[in-house]
Amino acid sequence: MKNILLIGAGRSTQSLVDYLSSHAVDSDWHITICDRDIKLAQKRAGSNERLSAVSLDITNDAERSEAIQKVDLVISMLPAHMHVPVAEDCVRFKKHMVTASYVSDQMNALHDKAVEAGVVLMNEIGVDPGIDHLSAMKVLDEIRSKGGEMTIFESFTGGLVAPESDDNPWGYKFSWNPRNVVLAGAGGAVKFKQEGLYKYIPYHQLFRRTEFIDIPEYGRFEGYANRDSLRYRSVYGLENIPTIYRGTLRRPGFCRAWDVFVKLGMTDDSYELEGVSEMTHRSFLNTFLGYNPNDSVELKLMHYLQIPQDSELMEKLEWLDIFKDTPIGLDKATPAQALQQILEKKWTMKPDDKDMIVMWHKFGYILDGERKMIESHMIAKGENAEATSMAKTVGLPVGIATRFILEGKISTPGVHLPISKEIYLPMLEELAANGIVFHEKEVEYQGY
Amino acid sequence: MKNILLIGAGRSTQSLVDYLSSHAVDSDWHITICDRDIKLAQKRAGSNERLSAVSLDITNDAERSEAIQKVDLVISMLPAHMHVPVAEDCVRFKKHMVTASYVSDQMNALHDKAVEAGVVLMNEIGVDPGIDHLSAMKVLDEIRSKGGEMTIFESFTGGLVAPESDDNPWGYKFSWNPRNVVLAGAGGAVKFKQEGLYKYIPYHQLFRRTEFIDIPEYGRFEGYANRDSLRYRSVYGLENIPTIYRGTLRRPGFCRAWDVFVKLGMTDDSYELEGVSEMTHRSFLNTFLGYNPNDSVELKLMHYLQIPQDSELMEKLEWLDIFKDTPIGLDKATPAQALQQILEKKWTMKPDDKDMIVMWHKFGYILDGERKMIESHMIAKGENAEATSMAKTVGLPVGIATRFILEGKISTPGVHLPISKEIYLPMLEELAANGIVFHEKEVEYQGY
Repeated sequence: MKNILLIGAGRSTQSLVDYLSSHAVDSDWHITICDRDIKLAQKRAGSNERLSAVSLDITNDAERSEAIQKVDLVISMLPAHMHVPVAEDCVRFKKHMVTASYVSDQMNALHDKAVEAGVVLMNEIGVDPGIDHLSAMKVLDEIRSKGGEMTIFESFTGGLVAPESDDNPWGYKFSWNPRNVVLAGAGGAVKFKQEGLYKYIPYHQLFRRTEFIDIPEYGRFEGYANRDSLRYRSVYGLENIPTIYRGTLRRPGFCRAWDVFVKLGMTDDSYELEGVSEMTHRSFLNTFLGYNPNDSVELKLMHYLQIPQDSELMEKLEWLDIFKDTPIGLDKATPAQALQQILEKKWTMKPDDKDMIVMWHKFGYILDGERKMIESHMIAKGENAEATSMAKTVGLPVGIATRFILEGKISTPGVHLPISKEIYLPMLEELAANGIVFHEKEVEYQGY
Repeated sequence: MKNILLIGAGRSTQSLVDYLSSHAVDSDWHITICDRDIKLAQKRAGSNERLSAVSLDITNDAERSEAIQKVDLVISMLPAHMHVPVAEDCVRFKKHMVTASYVSDQMNALHDKAVEAGVVLMNEIGVDPGIDHLSAMKVLDEIRSKGGEMTIFESFTGGLVAPESDDNPWGYKFSWNPRNVVLAGAGGAVKFKQEGLYKYIPYHQLFRRTEFIDIPEYGRFEGYANRDSLRYRSVYGLENIPTIYRGTLRRPGFCRAWDVFVKLGMTDDSYELEGVSEMTHRSFLNTFLGYNPNDSVELKLMHYLQIPQDSELMEKLEWLDIFKDTPIGLDKATPAQALQQILEKKWTMKPDDKDMIVMWHKFGYILDGERKMIESHMIAKGENAEATSMAKTVGLPVGIATRFILEGKISTPGVHLPISKEIYLPMLEELAANGIVFHEKEVEYQGY
């Protein structure tokens, strides 16, 4: 019997637990689910005899080491900064490990020790990062194996609301951590390369520099750039590619309206506002506008950011009740926390709402002197507000990687991202069997 | 005989050394000038027998302690973050200390020990901070002593070029550290209070939210807000004041044009650009603009930031040679460093150019039920590019405070700012005797 320890029983773990338990009898696995909140762990475990729930304080070194020693593989669904002590224990006790988070420098530093210990430390195997790596590397390797020379690589992912549940002017509801959505893009300039030229966009212009993307059956989306596209050059073996651009998808119009919050300074998380307990949506907005006792908050905003009164943008802002004298309902908050609180009142999914993950890649290349282009896309919908596609597309690849490591299909020891053929081919196949399917097609070449 | 140790012999120390040496014989002082660069120290000391120059590595604890032990008072003209070890030695060996820098938390933490040791650690006694404290506190205390209730306090300072040397469309040349000018305002939201309402401005809007200030004989200036005006409420005893606003002065039009650099992301100092050694002014600008092989850099910029072609703003940018294919001339640089390099080619003072310090305060108050207002301003001009008013207005108050401490006129031990009557009255008198004069006048009350 093989033992799996799953640390963290949050929202995105249900589909992971479902996948693992569907293979537990055949593969002879036992899965121990642990969380600080034992109730949450018990909820995930249910009454399946292959599953058990325990309470574990991950910051307690002795408790953590003891738990890890007992198993064959550890899945860490903790926040990214908490993986390292787990990974260190895994190397020490020769256990494999799987996480969906971005690989950190500290994690990378464990590579040699992991090789020596003969264990796989698999990272970035969620949706983004994760499924994006798998699906992009497959096409990239195919093109290169034919002798093609890459000229353009673009990749976009978005966590959105499905069309059938899209009932607000933003085309958006929170399907994952709202705080990360509010802070998306903040903190540093965006870096990418276009037709051989380096391009940089400061955060405060990010949502004004978007591009449209059309996806068959699903219509038009709008993409804004992710922080550092340049680092993917080395990850994907695209060191000399003239154009590389990664981004996030929203419905058209979202970015222009979100830009209002950025321009006002409402997404700043670096200081605490004064007098938050007395603040309403309207006075929160007014605190970012100039003082003028003769003009309304609406007029000051429209004048300041040159927004036409009859625009869809004003409709979006009004729909959020941002001009209303509704109390925010917090005692203290940074601007970003206050904004999040206001947004959560409106952007929360109803129990039957379905979310949607949209992923889209564009590959431009030269083959035998001819310019060619491939587009690849994947759409995954959730079932309801609980069983989201966000949770499924994060949890499922983690579960599949876990299975393949335990079965020895993924066996090269060390700290890894899922970018080698050994990994992406079987994983994409198993994802497709579970409804996560990429559609690739050749299209007419388009440069810039 | 009293011994003074002056640490740091940079640009702003000449007028300080002049002032001290003019009193050295009468007061029986010896001044030791030290710097990492012995040549610079020797230049300042000249052949005056009351002055000597030594080389000192301030980071060497033994060397530093030995030098401090020998004297009665230490003047630290080091960068702000290097004061603390000096201050600790001063407390330990019971020596007074004077600095022109903002008081840090670590400096404040030495207060009790300084009181116990019976030494004065005087901070913020340059121009801004420094002369602003002296001149503001005098009027504030006068108003309050009459029973007036403060309603408005605004204070602006600018280091500019004097009208007779103003020969460029920006009305600006560097008269102090160019790096600080390029990074001015970066890094955090601006906070102030207006008519009882808290107001916040993100950095990227700072240069669009300015106000005009007219000064007799010198015409119109434009002020943008300094980072945190709110903290001056406790410093100046203005806890409940409805309006408090501190800022920096430029000539009208400067801020709108500087805003272009901010909006483009050119003042970002957080990452290094790629390929700087190959970069020209024009390609540096282009790296912040969208890719389009059919449009010129000029057109892309005008379109992106909605700048009319025939505007003074375009004239300002053209005058800086920002559209020219001149090599930047650096091997590596952050955007802010590259911008600084381009600006230094044009904004450097010619040898005979005069700079100008402009300081302006506005005090609104209610006395006997009547609204009243006082404006106070000071203009100080430099002699040439070497003997600047910037250097004079920083160095002179440091010299005066040094003299008054050694003479026992300033004697209350502890960590201090120059905000008490004991300090500001004699200092303002001595500054006036040296040509730094404030003009106060009652004006008609103006609210917002």
